[in-house]
Amino acid sequence: MKGNIIVGQSGGPTAAINSSLAGIYCAAKDLGANKVYGMENGIQGLLEERFIDLDDYLKNDLDVDLLKRTPAAFLGSCRYKMPKFEGNEALYDRVFEIIEKLDVELFVYIGGNDSMDTIKQLSDYAAKVGYTKTRFMGCPKTIDNDLAITDHTPGFGSAAKYIGTSVKEVIRDASCIQYSKGFVTIIEIMGRNAGWLTGAAALSRGEDCKGPDMIYLPEVAFDVEDFMARVKKLMDEKGYVIAVVSEGIKLADGRYVCELGSGVDFVDSFGHKQLTGTAACLCNLVAAEIGCKTRAVEFSTLQRAASHMASLTDLNESYAAGYNTVLAGDRGETGKMVIFVRNSEFPYQCGVEVFDIHQIANAEKVVPREWITEDGTDVTEDFVNYVRPLIRGEVAQIMIDGIPRHLYR
Amino acid sequence: MKGNIIVGQSGGPTAAINSSLAGIYCAAKDLGANKVYGMENGIQGLLEERFIDLDDYLKNDLDVDLLKRTPAAFLGSCRYKMPKFEGNEALYDRVFEIIEKLDVELFVYIGGNDSMDTIKQLSDYAAKVGYTKTRFMGCPKTIDNDLAITDHTPGFGSAAKYIGTSVKEVIRDASCIQYSKGFVTIIEIMGRNAGWLTGAAALSRGEDCKGPDMIYLPEVAFDVEDFMARVKKLMDEKGYVIAVVSEGIKLADGRYVCELGSGVDFVDSFGHKQLTGTAACLCNLVAAEIGCKTRAVEFSTLQRAASHMASLTDLNESYAAGYNTVLAGDRGETGKMVIFVRNSEFPYQCGVEVFDIHQIANAEKVVPREWITEDGTDVTEDFVNYVRPLIRGEVAQIMIDGIPRHLYR
Repeated sequence: MKGNIIVGQSGGPTAAINSSLAGIYCAAKDLGANKVYGMENGIQGLLEERFIDLDDYLKNDLDVDLLKRTPAAFLGSCRYKMPKFEGNEALYDRVFEIIEKLDVELFVYIGGNDSMDTIKQLSDYAAKVGYTKTRFMGCPKTIDNDLAITDHTPGFGSAAKYIGTSVKEVIRDASCIQYSKGFVTIIEIMGRNAGWLTGAAALSRGEDCKGPDMIYLPEVAFDVEDFMARVKKLMDEKGYVIAVVSEGIKLADGRYVCELGSGVDFVDSFGHKQLTGTAACLCNLVAAEIGCKTRAVEFSTLQRAASHMASLTDLNESYAAGYNTVLAGDRGETGKMVIFVRNSEFPYQCGVEVFDIHQIANAEKVVPREWITEDGTDVTEDFVNYVRPLIRGEVAQIMIDGIPRHLYR
Repeated sequence: MKGNIIVGQSGGPTAAINSSLAGIYCAAKDLGANKVYGMENGIQGLLEERFIDLDDYLKNDLDVDLLKRTPAAFLGSCRYKMPKFEGNEALYDRVFEIIEKLDVELFVYIGGNDSMDTIKQLSDYAAKVGYTKTRFMGCPKTIDNDLAITDHTPGFGSAAKYIGTSVKEVIRDASCIQYSKGFVTIIEIMGRNAGWLTGAAALSRGEDCKGPDMIYLPEVAFDVEDFMARVKKLMDEKGYVIAVVSEGIKLADGRYVCELGSGVDFVDSFGHKQLTGTAACLCNLVAAEIGCKTRAVEFSTLQRAASHMASLTDLNESYAAGYNTVLAGDRGETGKMVIFVRNSEFPYQCGVEVFDIHQIANAEKVVPREWITEDGTDVTEDFVNYVRPLIRGEVAQIMIDGIPRHLYR
């Protein structure tokens, strides 16, 4: 590789996206790339010609190791989705003009579904206009684990580890107080349509912790009556209940559970409905019907930003994903995304390959029905066996004066 | 010490209350106590004669070390407040009857303000009726750091470390996305009347992080108009705002800020108003007035249960508090609580003494006005210097299959 690389980060941040950036940077350097540019705020910033030279920030091995441990997108992220190139040729020509000026051989975009669509559009347009100088590669990233083809996604393992750990701590907290009228705790986890993260709450289960009483994934219609009956029964039996719900659980008629309350609807710039308050909404229903104390706990952005509880497996794999994205681009691949392939279950072994982006972009992988218990209130042992290896290992933070140190710019 | 000890835990759990329990157990054993009983669910359980023998659960050094790392109250907690003994002599006689039967020489209660009142009542009643066999000692515990006389409280340092770390991660997350219309994040922290924990958000500040834009403590009246003007100015300047608020911030007229919204009021069994939704309420106001996206992040019970981010200083001091409570009881003290005395600032050195419980029970220590900036939107360097040593040091969790192991029963 003689020319330059440009890399961008897009979509919701994770605890591992910067580890992929570190892998991309190190691979580029190892392959002898001239410059490694970083788009500021993804393609949105690139269109404004805002970019940095990563050499200015990664001056030694310590900087690279700090980058791996820094949550959220070091380059800045965006929620800008490139429109289809048909009819928007001028916009695409503008992108190509900028990367031509920067002498970019390899264009890497780290992100989820929407970002992979950007890579698909860019590589398709390049093919259409016969622009062969630059390869376009996608590097997966999403805590939601909802990308197709790949066994799992970088970022998921760290979020799952944080969720399993925090759910266990909330359970310890909630179960130790004897209340005269009992207590219902409802924990709300991210994941609009895919219940991978919500199911990770089951990781709290072990010989030292019973885990949540119920876990509700968005893959199964939520039955309010059945839920309420279970809560009542558990309150009679043991005086407290801990339920975990996805933000995206829906009733059989398709309405979101959070729409049962007074929650404000909000549609983001990708046209996705913003969901909040599912747990709060259920708490209100429980309080009204059963008359007991309730507590809604939303893990909110903590679950995607908690580098302090990152999974070593996840950070290492995320780095490898970035590194292999550059290797693939260097050998001429374009319009592809790096995927993880689980070669062995016991012991866990994971390989890295590349795959045609057309089969990945805009597809959404949800939890298979057979990994959810028949009554729809929990995940199965198979689900836990799938997730467990992804959360193994801890990452020693670089602590300064009691607080984790991050790389900054 | 030839007889037995009984120990109870009361009030809201912390990440360090079990470290104090470990200290109490180890001191009792070192002093040759016969039995170390644990009340199940505090004095509420004791009145039902529910207690355990700690030897049944602490069989070796590993168990003791696991106990130190286990969040929430291992013995179970309660929110039961003993009434004044005048007019309730029968209830107190019942307590004395039970501890007499158990041959209790030393009665230790780990808790906050309300628990210290219980020790006061019990020791006063013992003095009144001439019951000299049992000493009654208080061991402090509260994440809120609002106990009088003591320099700080066991449990506060770990919660502060978690808050500083998590606020920093949320800031990284919130500041990396470029939104066309900007984004306001409001983080809500526990602490009804005392802003110690909310102020700990300032620990996120350093050369790698600017920290929150504003920090609002309950000690200063909250001015909605001034807040909104600051938000507008910051949105114009940089496109995002991160504010941290205590759950207990009030308007100048005494109303809680959360009462501005549609939040449900709830009074707990101690007569304290339950506060939730301060951040959500402010987010609604911002969205209505400025029309931008908002996100309310409540740290909720995570901030008091997060053993995985415990402060080593806090866990060690909490252990020492427990240990010294027993030493003091053994030398004949009663009606007293262990306090921390800061002997030196640089380097930080902290001693343990005992103090008359009458001057501690029911008193509440808030953040001094001079440790809050004049405009009431931040804490001063003196505040940070006070908190910093309490969060230093990390506690290696005992990890099993990617998740922290806890002691259970």
